[in-house]
Amino acid sequence: MLAGVSDGDDSMEHFWGVIPAGGSGTRLWPLSRRSAPKFLHDLSGSGHSLLQDTVSRLTPLTGQRVLVVTGVRHAEAVRAQLPDLPEDQVLVEPSPRDSMPAIGLAAAVLEQRDPAAVLGSFAADHVIHDGEAFRACIRDAVAAATTGALVTLGVTPTYPATGFGYIRVGDPWPTPGRTQARRAEQFVEKPDRARAEDYVASGSYLWNAGMFVVRASVLLDLLATWHPQMVTALRQLALEPSMIDEIWPGLTKISIDHAVAEPAADAGRVAVVPARFPWDDVGDFASLASLIAESADGIRVLGPRDQVVSRDSTGLVAAQGSRTVVTLGVDDIVVVDTPDAVLVTTRERVQDVKQIVADLQGSGREDLT
Amino acid sequence: MLAGVSDGDDSMEHFWGVIPAGGSGTRLWPLSRRSAPKFLHDLSGSGHSLLQDTVSRLTPLTGQRVLVVTGVRHAEAVRAQLPDLPEDQVLVEPSPRDSMPAIGLAAAVLEQRDPAAVLGSFAADHVIHDGEAFRACIRDAVAAATTGALVTLGVTPTYPATGFGYIRVGDPWPTPGRTQARRAEQFVEKPDRARAEDYVASGSYLWNAGMFVVRASVLLDLLATWHPQMVTALRQLALEPSMIDEIWPGLTKISIDHAVAEPAADAGRVAVVPARFPWDDVGDFASLASLIAESADGIRVLGPRDQVVSRDSTGLVAAQGSRTVVTLGVDDIVVVDTPDAVLVTTRERVQDVKQIVADLQGSGREDLT
Repeated sequence: MLAGVSDGDDSMEHFWGVIPAGGSGTRLWPLSRRSAPKFLHDLSGSGHSLLQDTVSRLTPLTGQRVLVVTGVRHAEAVRAQLPDLPEDQVLVEPSPRDSMPAIGLAAAVLEQRDPAAVLGSFAADHVIHDGEAFRACIRDAVAAATTGALVTLGVTPTYPATGFGYIRVGDPWPTPGRTQARRAEQFVEKPDRARAEDYVASGSYLWNAGMFVVRASVLLDLLATWHPQMVTALRQLALEPSMIDEIWPGLTKISIDHAVAEPAADAGRVAVVPARFPWDDVGDFASLASLIAESADGIRVLGPRDQVVSRDSTGLVAAQGSRTVVTLGVDDIVVVDTPDAVLVTTRERVQDVKQIVADLQGSGREDLT
Repeated sequence: MLAGVSDGDDSMEHFWGVIPAGGSGTRLWPLSRRSAPKFLHDLSGSGHSLLQDTVSRLTPLTGQRVLVVTGVRHAEAVRAQLPDLPEDQVLVEPSPRDSMPAIGLAAAVLEQRDPAAVLGSFAADHVIHDGEAFRACIRDAVAAATTGALVTLGVTPTYPATGFGYIRVGDPWPTPGRTQARRAEQFVEKPDRARAEDYVASGSYLWNAGMFVVRASVLLDLLATWHPQMVTALRQLALEPSMIDEIWPGLTKISIDHAVAEPAADAGRVAVVPARFPWDDVGDFASLASLIAESADGIRVLGPRDQVVSRDSTGLVAAQGSRTVVTLGVDDIVVVDTPDAVLVTTRERVQDVKQIVADLQGSGREDLT
């Protein structure tokens, strides 16, 4: 067992953290850019990037057993932010192929290194505040994964979100020892508002937060049921990493939900552990604002508090431009100050920030995106 | 007659422009700073500062006969912006003493240089778009001033403003030739809303825009009626400019309105020429916004248009920071971007910007004011 691993359970010794670090986060522009997506930024005010926080949250369980899968464009920044991570634990995708090839590659690599490996896949750009509760859920999920299940962590809805998929929860899942694992009866797509309200009212649905815990070999075997060619390719890549530029472009672009989780749930192979920790995908500035405490003057500040002067204002100021930002008499405002661009919008319109990014790209201002 | 003076009227040969260049314009922070008040900025989008525009508006009448009176802090910037102005036509106040000592000093200096001098005093930080109409009013005012009157230019109210004083207009003022000059029966203080509405409805009131045309010697003689010591001091200063540091601190701090215009009106010595030109004192960002045409996308931009990206927004963006400013879904917004500070407020709150400046000064951030 590596130094820093505090858990005594045998199965935890084979537990690896897998961190897909991708996505551009255009709804968080101008904080998040194609050249520096949101996982590279400190968006929670922790003093560390979301990626660094994601790793730190896992290491009490994994020690150095962490793989990061990222795009060629961000590999250097990822390595710079995680200097202690061994070189061969950053897997580099030549081009984006959605989450299945990324996590599948990690599974194939782990299967080679440790046939008993259990992987836990957690996005690099989510915020989870209670690390202890998170790790307790992971232990339950690992226990359930040892039964051959694909295990997901489902988040208890706090409002009828239409931006997430849902998981219908069934009976307890039989595991060795006592766990919170239940059967995941079905993954359902992002609902409309009325349906989301029904889901929340029923108490039988959890948010699909895209967190999976599964034996590497089980994941690949499940994937082989529906995408056998992809599994062949991924296992070949694990043996011959130098083939990546040849093999990667031929892989189907597909999410792990569509490729495996949904059909596996229908086949009764998926368990779900209800997440007993606050989770946020930091999908937009409203979500980001909710992670930051309101100051006495009513404003929420990401960045140095003394750079923001606020009077009769509520909302979010992200002061990332070394300048003083003043708000006067504006409610639910969102002000994002960066060295080359400043955004002024309102909580109501945060979803439309991605249209601004499209506008900029369409008008020859890609340099700002 | 100097080159560039196109007017053939004899009295115009003795007409001098006097430009008090003072005031800090705190309601236009962060554009206007103590170190660079609004008269030094291009706030109308003309490509020239308000001070430069004020001079250009006068030179068809005055040629080089222009005096600028400014504070010691801004003398260098004034000279840099007006490189053609002879050194001795920038009068420098050691400390602010309000408008009467400033204009009175100019009058005393002009009386020395040209006993027949008629001065026209115009603030350095107002915007007047129709230069021809402005100069036509000046000619009328100069004609009225030759009768020994203190002549003011009164602006026809466009709304019941509570931020300006008013002038009650009486019978035509007898002048040589045909002019629009009328008797100024009374100066009244800034009214409350109801009274302002009465004034506007009556049609008998004009805004006091602080523009005066008067023989230098008449102004000093009138001033001597109520403030004889000040006149003695100013005439001494005109003869011995090196005495300024000794004499200046002892002068009463008082406006020309209180010192002379109000009592002179009561004494029947003041004429008023109705201004037939658009005038704006650029007192706040709402006023500034009204001077700038609305773009097709609904926003008004002071600065390079291509630095502002706007969607579903109205209001003013002053882009003075070499950065891209984006507004999304904000109405009547005011965004002022400068290299060291950015302000976000609304049209409704523009009067309170001065409180922000006070806050900054009170919290040790004088460097930003």
